[in-house]
Amino acid sequence: MDRFHYHDGVLRCEGVDLEELAAEHGTPTYVYSRDTFRTHLADLTAAFSELHPLVCYAVKTCSNLHLLHELGAGGAGADVVSGGELHRALTAGIPAERIVFAGVGKSESELREAIAAGIGCVNVESESELELLGRVARSMGRTARAAIRVNPDVQSEGTPEKTTTGVRGSKFGIDLERVPRLFARASLLDHVRLTGVHVHLGSPIHSPEPYTVALTRVLDLVDKLRADGHEIELVNMGGGFAAEYETGAAPGWGVYADAITPVLKPFVAAGGKVVMEPGRSIAANAGVLLTRVRYLKDAGRHRVAIVDAGMNNLIRAALYDSFHFMWPVRPVDRLAPPTRSGWIDLPGLTGYDIAGPICESTDYLARERRLPTLAEGDVICIFGAGAYGMAMASQYNSSLRPAEVLVDGSTSRLIRRRDTYADLIEAELGLPDSKL
Amino acid sequence: MDRFHYHDGVLRCEGVDLEELAAEHGTPTYVYSRDTFRTHLADLTAAFSELHPLVCYAVKTCSNLHLLHELGAGGAGADVVSGGELHRALTAGIPAERIVFAGVGKSESELREAIAAGIGCVNVESESELELLGRVARSMGRTARAAIRVNPDVQSEGTPEKTTTGVRGSKFGIDLERVPRLFARASLLDHVRLTGVHVHLGSPIHSPEPYTVALTRVLDLVDKLRADGHEIELVNMGGGFAAEYETGAAPGWGVYADAITPVLKPFVAAGGKVVMEPGRSIAANAGVLLTRVRYLKDAGRHRVAIVDAGMNNLIRAALYDSFHFMWPVRPVDRLAPPTRSGWIDLPGLTGYDIAGPICESTDYLARERRLPTLAEGDVICIFGAGAYGMAMASQYNSSLRPAEVLVDGSTSRLIRRRDTYADLIEAELGLPDSKL
Repeated sequence: MDRFHYHDGVLRCEGVDLEELAAEHGTPTYVYSRDTFRTHLADLTAAFSELHPLVCYAVKTCSNLHLLHELGAGGAGADVVSGGELHRALTAGIPAERIVFAGVGKSESELREAIAAGIGCVNVESESELELLGRVARSMGRTARAAIRVNPDVQSEGTPEKTTTGVRGSKFGIDLERVPRLFARASLLDHVRLTGVHVHLGSPIHSPEPYTVALTRVLDLVDKLRADGHEIELVNMGGGFAAEYETGAAPGWGVYADAITPVLKPFVAAGGKVVMEPGRSIAANAGVLLTRVRYLKDAGRHRVAIVDAGMNNLIRAALYDSFHFMWPVRPVDRLAPPTRSGWIDLPGLTGYDIAGPICESTDYLARERRLPTLAEGDVICIFGAGAYGMAMASQYNSSLRPAEVLVDGSTSRLIRRRDTYADLIEAELGLPDSKL
Repeated sequence: MDRFHYHDGVLRCEGVDLEELAAEHGTPTYVYSRDTFRTHLADLTAAFSELHPLVCYAVKTCSNLHLLHELGAGGAGADVVSGGELHRALTAGIPAERIVFAGVGKSESELREAIAAGIGCVNVESESELELLGRVARSMGRTARAAIRVNPDVQSEGTPEKTTTGVRGSKFGIDLERVPRLFARASLLDHVRLTGVHVHLGSPIHSPEPYTVALTRVLDLVDKLRADGHEIELVNMGGGFAAEYETGAAPGWGVYADAITPVLKPFVAAGGKVVMEPGRSIAANAGVLLTRVRYLKDAGRHRVAIVDAGMNNLIRAALYDSFHFMWPVRPVDRLAPPTRSGWIDLPGLTGYDIAGPICESTDYLARERRLPTLAEGDVICIFGAGAYGMAMASQYNSSLRPAEVLVDGSTSRLIRRRDTYADLIEAELGLPDSKL
């Protein structure tokens, strides 16, 4: 499913040797495979082809301009959740009409920017936001296209509480029974064209059932709204498909599509339009994080490898207890991993705590992970880092955010330069009344 | 203990009305009290006066240049954990000899920068680092002053696992029994002057006992090292004092000092030097985060206030389940809070979920928090946000990092401008072979 493979004892991304790439660009560095991004987008779109969906890539997952550009060129739209993401999507050349804008806390200026750009749809998350959208659109003399994000009250097994969004009482969306009132209200607003229903369950959702349950509720709602006289053109089914962090751990798009297509097909056959917002399943395995072992040490009974990437670069392990497969780029004895999983059945492995350089105990990328024997200077590849990796990076400990590199066949190019010390302090200098 | 108080029904920082300040600078904005920073530093130093400590402020806590400058002018040195923090401390005018450098993963170039600057002490965290320090110093023709960070194997009650650093098996420091070997090794290195012992227990440590236990072990080690013929000039006791996130919840510096002073006094009386690395207890209550209510909504049985600050600005609630007291800057009916705590005993309060704008369920600043009735547009003050607030901020969801403002008496000035859209993408533009 991706283009990161061992060849002659060294890990390659497509045709590029990742040890050489680490030497060229330094570490930590995020590396993305163009072909994996494009193939994932194409495969997903093909799986859902009967629904002719507009695939709006979830920009929050991995938002580098150059990746957005590649996806846009492959036909994707963008699911944005802030003015900053809207700015990214437009800068990357994604057509405005293919952009949808969700998010519980859109500001007035963000709504103004979205309307000015002429985006495809604003996904409204509260009654107050609907009113504000109407006022802003009226003040601009424009009409805003909008959908209501409903909360379908669907719990999905195995989705972490921290990333579940479609349960009753959450901050996301609007409870089903409150939605008809909003449509009635919107019909009185001259500058809002409310013709869609949006739902998003969170991420990752490990099976298709939560989608079919939620979409069945959404289609019931659509029937009711149509019976009330409202025109409903669009159902946005959100995103959240699981990614294959471990070999075989995700169902694959076909499994989701086989279950979801029959539910939505009548809506599409009757002229309805479907939007999807995948992110993780496209990006996670299309990117890795390369990190170098700075020091090896013994601590109590633990063998600790201190690496140069930490929670500042990739916070998923610290924040969500997430699992990331990792393996040396050039393992001793050419020990290539037979699968990517938490337990690798090979002789001669050693248990390591993989610790980052940040000054807090949270900062481990893995504990007691069985790996080929490591040496200081070895480069380790952290797999499945394309989603919610760089997008959540910080400068904690005044660290420099990583470089990002895009591989295309046998070539690679820098798509984000590493931070510099000057970047850290630039916004604090040159201010009035400064003593510095 | 700090200068944030209600006056005539409105919250002030020193002499500045925080509602006016929010209007002037927008939200979210971090606001710091210069007097609180300076008074905290002075009070802490006074509490430990018998030890004549060098107080090295932990830059990772809150690293704005202008705050470092104020603390440096008040006599503080700096505890840094990266080349970026070293750059900050030097740029802020803190003398190099007052800077100590800890961290498990220092790179070769960071060690080079530290030696070139002539900092006071490198706190070495592994045998490999000691060797690297020796090689780097030799290549520069300089001598590096160093201490060994020992792991005293002390657990402290009530300190979260995520921020406990002095327990056996952690990545931090060197197990006590391995330390003599390192001093023996260092005595053979011409370019390393190893004359200190460093210990750091994590943060927050809610009582003085872990310090006295750890320091007793450290002083036993010092005796042993001296008996082995090593010159020991310095004991660095680290930081970690608790901050008063809730009224009365922290012991205060006097309590720590009363217990710790007798332990270290003989060492000082015999000519030894003591270094301290406080951060949280100085910074936490010297800063707040101002956020505005964007939308109010009902979700299930929850009353939700969507505010414009989230886990991107202040991740402590999401990452550590931390408690932050919060209250409207201009509460209805002038309902000033009698204390800062999780349960406020006032009539007429309403329970709110305080949710940020970020698209994930983790992004709540508080759940079911009893507050005076809120209206959209109200400014809420999140207290105790001076430590590990802005320092851990990210641009997740392509959000703009907040402005920072420093209040001094009846005046205020911007000490960090808010991010712009251009800041988000600057490092991704102007690169070779770009298609954008």
